[in-house]
Amino acid sequence: MTNAAKTIGIYIFDGAEELDFVGPFEVFTMSDEVARATKSDGRTKVVLISETGKPVTAAKGMRIMADASFETAPPLDVFLIPGGKGTRTEVDKPQVLDWIAEATKPCEWITSVCTGSLVLGAAGPAKSKRVTTHWSFIEGLRERGDVAEVLENIRYVRDGNLVTSAGVSAGIDMALWLVGQMFGESHARNTQRGMEYDPAPPYAAEV
Amino acid sequence: MTNAAKTIGIYIFDGAEELDFVGPFEVFTMSDEVARATKSDGRTKVVLISETGKPVTAAKGMRIMADASFETAPPLDVFLIPGGKGTRTEVDKPQVLDWIAEATKPCEWITSVCTGSLVLGAAGPAKSKRVTTHWSFIEGLRERGDVAEVLENIRYVRDGNLVTSAGVSAGIDMALWLVGQMFGESHARNTQRGMEYDPAPPYAAEV
Repeated sequence: MTNAAKTIGIYIFDGAEELDFVGPFEVFTMSDEVARATKSDGRTKVVLISETGKPVTAAKGMRIMADASFETAPPLDVFLIPGGKGTRTEVDKPQVLDWIAEATKPCEWITSVCTGSLVLGAAGPAKSKRVTTHWSFIEGLRERGDVAEVLENIRYVRDGNLVTSAGVSAGIDMALWLVGQMFGESHARNTQRGMEYDPAPPYAAEV
Repeated sequence: MTNAAKTIGIYIFDGAEELDFVGPFEVFTMSDEVARATKSDGRTKVVLISETGKPVTAAKGMRIMADASFETAPPLDVFLIPGGKGTRTEVDKPQVLDWIAEATKPCEWITSVCTGSLVLGAAGPAKSKRVTTHWSFIEGLRERGDVAEVLENIRYVRDGNLVTSAGVSAGIDMALWLVGQMFGESHARNTQRGMEYDPAPPYAAEV
């Protein structure tokens, strides 16, 4: 008897950076594939959520369809927001910040990749927390003053149930670490092997 | 005066593994972004091509729109085919193999990620060449007999203008190496930095 699948909601929007969300998407769905094959914990259901449920055009031009809208999204165990140039617009949309604040309340984990931490700072979950972001945005995020501290030269930062990662591909490291937290290290390593991810194994970066 | 942009065609199909093509997509489009910012070589135009031009449902359920069909695709400088469970179906479609054979003829580079090498073996470009693939498919590809040799425990293999990579995230390493071949190592490192990709820098794996 294995545990129930975790529902993981990934917020996608115009100008979201492609690898920021597809990297973790691959990790979470590979976790599910490995869990099915080994009949062990690690089951996930990943839902791509856009504000209206319509497709989005990501930062580099890739057009992706959404599985749900703000209205139809299921209750989430894990929330992830990617970065990308679109975050500069998202951070000024009250309806987006309000929805994120509500949708993340029951979450076991609240996560961002790259400049996604900008939006989590404004929406509430990262307010007065220690976070990281893309190297080129460290100063910009500090100047906004929403978060307590912006750490640099680190792949991802955990502060309570908030986990924020550095730029783009660092989201893969964070997602693998999260899979380890939720389903155990052995399962995380099998997931890593399934996708042949080759950097040094991810370790916790608790601060 | 910088060189003309390289047109890079990525073939997408039902059952293509998400990170297999989004990883290299991010590398090639980041190369373009860095080149624009630094006014240097590295410009690319990345085109997602499906057989009919309709959206595809990738291996883990992500639905992506295509930019072009077999009929409307522009002439390509670089061709990339991802892997994923869908390759087992693609390899038995004569019209797909024929189109790949034709579209890759003028290419400067012909590349695959993961089990994409299965299709390149059947279509012609990898016939009697040395290649690699996902670790779980090494024996399966050998047994088909299309390619000359299947190397294991290697991130990517170059044989002439054919470059095949190991599973899923190894496509990122291969794409960064390719950017280095096309636009120089310094530009490839700037591209890597833009996406904060953290493994050891990719080196050539010529065999």
